[in-house]
Amino acid sequence: MIEHLTKYKKAITDFLTEYLRRQQRVIFEGTRFGHDVAERLLTFSLQGKMIRGSLVYIGAGVYGHADDDPALLRMAAVMELLQSFLLIHDDIMDRDRLRRGAPSIYAQYDELGREEGIRDHLHFGEAMGICTGDVAIFLATGLIADESIPDEHRRSLLSAVSCEISRVGLAQMGDVYHGVSPAEIAEEDVINVYRLKTGRYTFSLPLCCGAILAGAPEEELEALGRIGEGLGIVFQIKDDDIGLFGTTEGIGKTVGSDISEDKKTLHRIELFRRASETDRAALEPLFGARAIGTGQVDDVLEAMRRYGVDTYVQERMQQFADHTADMIRSDLRLVTERGRQMLESLLEYNLTRSQ
Amino acid sequence: MIEHLTKYKKAITDFLTEYLRRQQRVIFEGTRFGHDVAERLLTFSLQGKMIRGSLVYIGAGVYGHADDDPALLRMAAVMELLQSFLLIHDDIMDRDRLRRGAPSIYAQYDELGREEGIRDHLHFGEAMGICTGDVAIFLATGLIADESIPDEHRRSLLSAVSCEISRVGLAQMGDVYHGVSPAEIAEEDVINVYRLKTGRYTFSLPLCCGAILAGAPEEELEALGRIGEGLGIVFQIKDDDIGLFGTTEGIGKTVGSDISEDKKTLHRIELFRRASETDRAALEPLFGARAIGTGQVDDVLEAMRRYGVDTYVQERMQQFADHTADMIRSDLRLVTERGRQMLESLLEYNLTRSQ
Repeated sequence: MIEHLTKYKKAITDFLTEYLRRQQRVIFEGTRFGHDVAERLLTFSLQGKMIRGSLVYIGAGVYGHADDDPALLRMAAVMELLQSFLLIHDDIMDRDRLRRGAPSIYAQYDELGREEGIRDHLHFGEAMGICTGDVAIFLATGLIADESIPDEHRRSLLSAVSCEISRVGLAQMGDVYHGVSPAEIAEEDVINVYRLKTGRYTFSLPLCCGAILAGAPEEELEALGRIGEGLGIVFQIKDDDIGLFGTTEGIGKTVGSDISEDKKTLHRIELFRRASETDRAALEPLFGARAIGTGQVDDVLEAMRRYGVDTYVQERMQQFADHTADMIRSDLRLVTERGRQMLESLLEYNLTRSQ
Repeated sequence: MIEHLTKYKKAITDFLTEYLRRQQRVIFEGTRFGHDVAERLLTFSLQGKMIRGSLVYIGAGVYGHADDDPALLRMAAVMELLQSFLLIHDDIMDRDRLRRGAPSIYAQYDELGREEGIRDHLHFGEAMGICTGDVAIFLATGLIADESIPDEHRRSLLSAVSCEISRVGLAQMGDVYHGVSPAEIAEEDVINVYRLKTGRYTFSLPLCCGAILAGAPEEELEALGRIGEGLGIVFQIKDDDIGLFGTTEGIGKTVGSDISEDKKTLHRIELFRRASETDRAALEPLFGARAIGTGQVDDVLEAMRRYGVDTYVQERMQQFADHTADMIRSDLRLVTERGRQMLESLLEYNLTRSQ
């Protein structure tokens, strides 16, 4: 399924390469950092799996729209540039110096500043990172103005992108706040962040962009948007689950890193809701502890199993999946049977993947 | 003329108030910071003079387009929201805690973080400020999707906004770099930043957005864009000039603050190009010095006069103004005679204003 999800990666890669190189010559000509930014942005964008871009094609495909429509490629590239912008800004907020094994953008500029003898090179790096993210946004919106996109669809596309990304910005604010605030967070708040950041942003938005280009009407887009929310919530809960109970090789990050980052997952909330006072006191310091050993991770996982947290989270995830499956079966009117199956296999993948 | 430039401020104020309050109810519903961000963004946006928004009306007016077109109001609001985004991000980069006498957005969130017991409240404030700016961008692009804007003009408007703002992002990177890099900067680099940040962004973009809505064709937009560059360069050189030789009451900031911020102005470059080695050694430490007294500011101004820097900069400014006047007279084909006069009085204002 992951192959299916990233089926269009090569086309998007080629297009982004050509587009960013063209911008270097056209709109960035004569600026001090134009060439530099375009190259870094290109390298950064090509590191991703391009799931969001591929979902644009899937959104059109469920309505039987041919995948050789050049507008689909533009909107797929828009999704990937927006993803780059979000990651670039998020890395500054989370102080993540590494992204997919390579230095994050602000860390790259921090290094450049250090090399050039700039005193506060970290702040310089952050400032340059903010700008790079901003530039990525307008390179993305510039593509929505591409002539291959029919005028009659441009308004809906721009509206969908603007609405969803402004909400991602707000969800990110909630994330930033809950990441550092001593205030406790409720399961509902976590699900709400998942709904916005993973659901509407990663799934609903690209699926709807594809559907818009396939000519799907408003009610259909609303239903598809709600299905995307469900797909995203399931994807994200599963992500947390394999981040705890998966293997480091499978997930591509250290098992337990969500614990040391004190990520506010359903697992964490439910564990502390159920744990005895003694267990709570013993486990609490492990969440957010910089250096956490394998033994300590095992203690947390053992406690989660003992309190039935893993089963509880599985059940919650299954509830969201069942609800999403219902919507796929009942709420879409104009989708083809093959389209319905595409969405069902997407849901199945989100629910069962092990990496 | 400033009244003329901000003639449409009330309409834009009312519209932004209504729009941001509506977004609170519609797209921000149920998020932790939706209400908060919309209110802060509104207060922040309404503090401005709204020159850019008013220039949208002027751009349409030079082609005789009626100012009751609701699309003009939307695009004026787009300009103001984008200006808010740029200032919010710039304040983080420049560590400016004050903006128009009130705390800047990141400083507001820094304070909120402190009140709520967040340990690294400054970083929290910066992260929230980055997000607020990002949200402002997508509230702006969402307005370009407004139904009052004819589909046939949406593509050009979105393209113009995307192109110019991505270039502002790059110009800002140049600014950040030259603000902290030990490398010397040439007059040409300064003019280039003025051309992009003040010229194309503050003048060309809103004028062209108005002209697009008035139905002006491509060649006309190109000519108007070049005129905007000239208007902006003159505006910015004048800004530097009154920042040095004006009065604190007139300019609304401390005379000499450009010296303590080590702003790379034409004045600064030319002074160091002309100064004797002894003068250079005496003056150089004053640029970028945190606390600079009135006496020291006077020393710098006296040296600038002694070396004829003020006269040189006046001449350069007049050259740019003459070139711009030529373009206004010769390069526009479809503009009305009254429209030409509007642009000429705009140029005259930029050249002669004392505050």
